[in-house]
Amino acid sequence: MTKTAVTVLGLGAMGRALAEATLAAGHPTTVWNRSADKAADLVDRGAVRAATVAEAVGAAPVVIACVLDQPVLCEILDPAADALAGRALVNLTNGTPDEARRMAEWVAGHGADYLDGGIMAVPPMIGEPGALILYSGSREVFDRHRTVLDVLAEGDHLGADPGLAALYDLALLGGMYGMFAGARHAAALVATVGGDPVRFVEQRLVPWLNAVMPALSGSAEAGDPADSPVAMQRIAIANIIRASREQGLPADLLAHLLAPIAPPTDPQITDDVRRLADLTIG
Amino acid sequence: MTKTAVTVLGLGAMGRALAEATLAAGHPTTVWNRSADKAADLVDRGAVRAATVAEAVGAAPVVIACVLDQPVLCEILDPAADALAGRALVNLTNGTPDEARRMAEWVAGHGADYLDGGIMAVPPMIGEPGALILYSGSREVFDRHRTVLDVLAEGDHLGADPGLAALYDLALLGGMYGMFAGARHAAALVATVGGDPVRFVEQRLVPWLNAVMPALSGSAEAGDPADSPVAMQRIAIANIIRASREQGLPADLLAHLLAPIAPPTDPQITDDVRRLADLTIG
Ligand SMILES: NC(=O)c1ccc[n+]([C@@H]2O[C@H](COP(=O)([O-])OP(=O)(O)OC[C@H]3O[C@@H](n4cnc5c(N)ncnc54)[C@H](OP(=O)(O)O)[C@@H]3O)[C@@H](O)[C@H]2O)c1
Ligand SMILES: NC(=O)c1ccc[n+]([C@@H]2O[C@H](COP(=O)([O-])OP(=O)(O)OC[C@H]3O[C@@H](n4cnc5c(N)ncnc54)[C@H](OP(=O)(O)O)[C@@H]3O)[C@@H](O)[C@H]2O)c1
Repeated sequence: MTKTAVTVLGLGAMGRALAEATLAAGHPTTVWNRSADKAADLVDRGAVRAATVAEAVGAAPVVIACVLDQPVLCEILDPAADALAGRALVNLTNGTPDEARRMAEWVAGHGADYLDGGIMAVPPMIGEPGALILYSGSREVFDRHRTVLDVLAEGDHLGADPGLAALYDLALLGGMYGMFAGARHAAALVATVGGDPVRFVEQRLVPWLNAVMPALSGSAEAGDPADSPVAMQRIAIANIIRASREQGLPADLLAHLLAPIAPPTDPQITDDVRRLADLTIG
Repeated sequence: MTKTAVTVLGLGAMGRALAEATLAAGHPTTVWNRSADKAADLVDRGAVRAATVAEAVGAAPVVIACVLDQPVLCEILDPAADALAGRALVNLTNGTPDEARRMAEWVAGHGADYLDGGIMAVPPMIGEPGALILYSGSREVFDRHRTVLDVLAEGDHLGADPGLAALYDLALLGGMYGMFAGARHAAALVATVGGDPVRFVEQRLVPWLNAVMPALSGSAEAGDPADSPVAMQRIAIANIIRASREQGLPADLLAHLLAPIAPPTDPQITDDVRRLADLTIG
């Protein structure tokens, strides 16, 4: 297998994992990080440390960027813009679809190709089975540099619009944070009666979420399921809110529980739930 | 196996499933429902229809109640209070811990035993493997009437405090609604770029949630995980909010996304995220 020279910009928790994977696969790897000392152990393992971003960009045909956010990437690429011509920028920094589209335009204006990516994995998963990166933008870059990209994670190219990967990435992250928010709230409730939150999550919540997971695609649709009438569900949600208040948990933390029934902007339903939440047993 | 006479109060989606299960298992079953016609097909299968709640309560040593909410249960039991003495009320109606404790006291005042329960299943699961009912209150009722309770679902008695089942039930439901809220939001985002929400949930979101499920118990704990720094996560959450605005989704629907990072009542962090949500690429 031919080895492609790669540059990795950013050696935070994720950038370091990416550089370790390209190094381990034998791709000549140049690295740059604002705090230069973070490159030391990678240099020990054969990486080349570039003194400037321009030097790093000039060192390889594929430049993988993984820094904190898009403004940081703009800031570090700006003085290196002239080095970009003829190269491919693979931007694995989290951002919005519009940011990705603007970055694609800026990069094209400097004669380079652009592939955007959203990493659906935590750093220890990089290079391991189960890691996924969603890509969008240049299909040609995705195909040409497959040998490099495949050492990071399974790749899935969603389309030519550079914003697609960011959109799907943020949708999936939003789904995850919804689940985490629910879990935090559940664990906090159980802790109010002396239950162990971690044991509760592992032994009760995870099996329960797995049991209701098949209902998830239905929950993305509108309608009043005969088995679980919406009126009954509203009362259950009101009971979650009332019980949380009884246990001294902030009700604010629970505002998101209204969303599954109807957007909180629907005043009728929001009022209904508020009213129900204030009901007390006769 | 000796068969115990059972009464079921309430024949909504769930009460009907409970009565069907006790009937199918050969327990003599008396039913009552406000709208009496809902009992017709159960009577065809051998159930006895009671004309009043008092008559229904008087017909069996175990009375299972499953109506819309606790105020409804109070209302229908009040005129039947004298019939309760010496019986066991198994209350499978959703409610708060305080409601359960007050119901237990009221029932004791009328010479009856009390077992509270939270049904962790949808109606079609009743009597099938995987259905679970959390119980609390009288351990003696739970043990004595095991042959009846076991035909409904696996039973798990959490303790003598009658409020425990409601608390764990509502915690688990809250976790589920958090996951559903996240899924709704994710599906709505994908729909803005023409993606099919149901296909997205089934093919992308469910595998992703399964992949991050092991991180759920960690998310119930505080702290700054080295692999996924909180500062990085705040930016990802701000990006979810910004992308949702870009796509024309109400930002209100997303307020719950702040909760995984810190209670929204922490003004510092809320301001941080608000500020980040307003950042635009340079
Ligand atoms: N970690 C994960 O679980 C994970 C998962 C999926 C996607 N991601 C994405 O990967 C990207 C990087 O995340 P991470 O976990 O590696 O974050 P991190 O550990 O906080 O690293 C942040 C990186 O950005 C650099 N940086 C920050 N501000 C800078 C500035 N003003 N100028 C130059 N460089 C700057 C840091 O350099 P210094 O070392 O000099 O501070 C560091 O290299 C993010 O977009 C994140 O959303 C992360
Ligand atoms: N369905 C589920 O997925 C599910 C899952 C777990 C737990 N649960 C719990 O089970 C309980 C019942 O839910 P469900 O799904 O059976 O709801 P449902 O189908 O809406 O049935 C509601 C029941 O309450 C009765 N009712 C309502 N208002 C009344 C009143 N003022 N006086 C007398 N009876 C009244 C209804 O009688 P009518 O027939 O006369 O209207 C009906 O029997 C709820 O506490 C729910 O949280 C349900």
